[in-house]
Amino acid sequence: LRQEDLDLFRSEFTQLHSYDQAKFFSKVEDELRTRLYHYLSPEEMAELFESLDIDEEDYQEILAEMNPSYAAEMLSNMYADDAVDVLNELDKEQVVSYLTIMDDESAKEIKELLHYEEYTAGSIMTTEFVAISQNQTVRSAMYILKNEAPNAETIYYIYVVDDDKKLVGVISLRDLIISHDDVMISEIMSERVMSVGVSEDQEAVARQMKDYDFLALPVVDFQHHLLGIITVDDIMDVMEEEASDDYSKLAGIADLDSIDRNPFNAAKKRLPWLIALLFLGMITANLIGRFEATLDKVAILAVFIPLIAGMAGNTGTQALAVAVRGIATGDLEKENKLSLVLREAGTGLITGTTCGIVVSLIVYVWKGTFFLGMLVGVSVFISLFVATLAGTLVPLFMHKLKVDPAVASGPFITTINDIISTLIYLGLATLFLNYLI
Amino acid sequence: LRQEDLDLFRSEFTQLHSYDQAKFFSKVEDELRTRLYHYLSPEEMAELFESLDIDEEDYQEILAEMNPSYAAEMLSNMYADDAVDVLNELDKEQVVSYLTIMDDESAKEIKELLHYEEYTAGSIMTTEFVAISQNQTVRSAMYILKNEAPNAETIYYIYVVDDDKKLVGVISLRDLIISHDDVMISEIMSERVMSVGVSEDQEAVARQMKDYDFLALPVVDFQHHLLGIITVDDIMDVMEEEASDDYSKLAGIADLDSIDRNPFNAAKKRLPWLIALLFLGMITANLIGRFEATLDKVAILAVFIPLIAGMAGNTGTQALAVAVRGIATGDLEKENKLSLVLREAGTGLITGTTCGIVVSLIVYVWKGTFFLGMLVGVSVFISLFVATLAGTLVPLFMHKLKVDPAVASGPFITTINDIISTLIYLGLATLFLNYLI
Repeated sequence: LRQEDLDLFRSEFTQLHSYDQAKFFSKVEDELRTRLYHYLSPEEMAELFESLDIDEEDYQEILAEMNPSYAAEMLSNMYADDAVDVLNELDKEQVVSYLTIMDDESAKEIKELLHYEEYTAGSIMTTEFVAISQNQTVRSAMYILKNEAPNAETIYYIYVVDDDKKLVGVISLRDLIISHDDVMISEIMSERVMSVGVSEDQEAVARQMKDYDFLALPVVDFQHHLLGIITVDDIMDVMEEEASDDYSKLAGIADLDSIDRNPFNAAKKRLPWLIALLFLGMITANLIGRFEATLDKVAILAVFIPLIAGMAGNTGTQALAVAVRGIATGDLEKENKLSLVLREAGTGLITGTTCGIVVSLIVYVWKGTFFLGMLVGVSVFISLFVATLAGTLVPLFMHKLKVDPAVASGPFITTINDIISTLIYLGLATLFLNYLI
Repeated sequence: LRQEDLDLFRSEFTQLHSYDQAKFFSKVEDELRTRLYHYLSPEEMAELFESLDIDEEDYQEILAEMNPSYAAEMLSNMYADDAVDVLNELDKEQVVSYLTIMDDESAKEIKELLHYEEYTAGSIMTTEFVAISQNQTVRSAMYILKNEAPNAETIYYIYVVDDDKKLVGVISLRDLIISHDDVMISEIMSERVMSVGVSEDQEAVARQMKDYDFLALPVVDFQHHLLGIITVDDIMDVMEEEASDDYSKLAGIADLDSIDRNPFNAAKKRLPWLIALLFLGMITANLIGRFEATLDKVAILAVFIPLIAGMAGNTGTQALAVAVRGIATGDLEKENKLSLVLREAGTGLITGTTCGIVVSLIVYVWKGTFFLGMLVGVSVFISLFVATLAGTLVPLFMHKLKVDPAVASGPFITTINDIISTLIYLGLATLFLNYLI
């Protein structure tokens, strides 16, 4: 359909929103994609690329399809922060070669941003913003704005800097518009301008933007020099990324796979976890094996192993979810960590007592042996208490050690709690074996 | 400190960003809060209230502390969509009484919004937007904008309507500013304006806004009349809400509790799940009980029950996470559901085969009995396959039935898979019991 008439195709395609263009782009075959590079100018392709949402590894492949000078020109036409996101996926040498072909100004902008570490404010900020001096009138500010508008990523907040480029105020376009032309900027700007440090974590930035309902936030260095801005569209991507990150951790998947993947890719992402858990599970099996003598004598004990292990696993996951979420949202930084641990200990006592009583009554009525009921009940009580604490302490500990908290994932906590609860149950059973036979 | 000097307090407090005011407000004791109502005008309190992030039940209590006419005036000073969020938490009669005291115009706006169902585009939109006619010049549009700016929730997108109030175009303030004063709006507006239906789900709206990087989206009825707009700050709240919703479901907590709650509240939110799972766990126990004869003869069988159940639970959670996320992001609506099921079946076969082989080798080496290794391996293989399918089919089925998918939560799937896998393992063991003794 879209193979023949170039003019018609161009006029239709360029009318589309860049997000729809990008969706089209990521769906067509390789051959058609190469054709697109001839049909679209580097400027048009740059816009499409900014909306492109593909796997990180694929960028390398796609850029390799392009003529290098076309690719370099496209990159220089992208907003610097988006171009940096793409370049971060490439090899060092490739980056250098693209930067060499590129026009000097864009290359300089991009080089500056490439310095910042991933997941910091610096890595998601853009340097294409509008800054003015405070000794201007509204009229001259509007004049600057009109000139800068086509290049700046947002013009809805204008930042005011002093002669040293230090951030001293902010004014919204809204306030600018309703002000009289001859008023000085210094009179109407807000001096209480909020900013973020360039090395601050992107998640903290996202939280601040969401809480204060900003459309953009200025990024400063430690001397309060204005380095760039972060816009709300980038923050929405960060929020999505972080949420799906927490979510995958809880489910024990390396990285949540999108729907269109083939089963081999999906299996590859899940198997590392499953194999690791298999070995942990072997520890549980080995542990139960040590109680074989007890189980041989009272076979009915085996009946309640999955129940107790399951309950401990579930309550551990609940506690884990609360702790991980608390760390992620930053609530925990401010609050006392000890108070969380104490509260969770209390919660574990309450849920443990309740479930313990319920389970011992059921087992007593069902099996008619009082002592078995007591044993299962007490095991549930202790297991839930310990599992709740483990679900809280493990992620806090990981966080303290600055270890990647992905290790404290849902399945890991569940399996650890399987081991602990089985040990408690069969240990108690062996201790009081005489009462059971 | 802040009890005595009213003037000083006022001048300091009103300088703060409303989010910080709100944080202060939600922390002070009741007595100080009442004092604040005297210190701040209803307009100032309205701004604070828009940033307030407290539990839904608490709104009722706080409004009751205020003088009714003060409360009504405050509500009428809030953006209509935020006022509706507050009113939605109150009893019907209270809402009516506030609306009666309120000035007519605000009451009318709020009444309109109150009609829309929660979680739809209508419930999060605001009616305070700027709309112009296409037969205007840029100059007259700017004039309208300057007048409307103080009341509109955003002025960065201006919507163009025809005489019937139907949406025909959109123009950004950015484009308006760089255009010549005498150009007609119809010449520079974009006719490809994206909009959402008033009854569309808020999650779909959030997705659209994020994908297309909009700062606002117009909301229309089925005849394309412009009813309101949704701004990006509301969408960030929706994204946060939905992400934390998916997350709590996976962890099996009614509602993720914030850190400062006491243990009784936390336990109350977790116990319903734990008790429900306890009864499900009893089914597992009962099931194993039926195989007591088998276990009595080969006690070592019990050793591998938690391993197999755990593996099935983990892989089921992984599949569940992928399916729930697919439903949430809307990816699944577009794609063929059958293809997801087939892919997951493939994934289950691959992970099942791999883990099955690994586990049978380990058991064979460890216990030295070939047949036990085979039995555990085959059980793991079948369990992983079935568990992966269950993790995929249960949420899809819930979604199809329009049942609240919270039922298909992580712990539920885990426990179901415990039951299935135990049944498979002990069933196979009983069938081939002769080879095991």
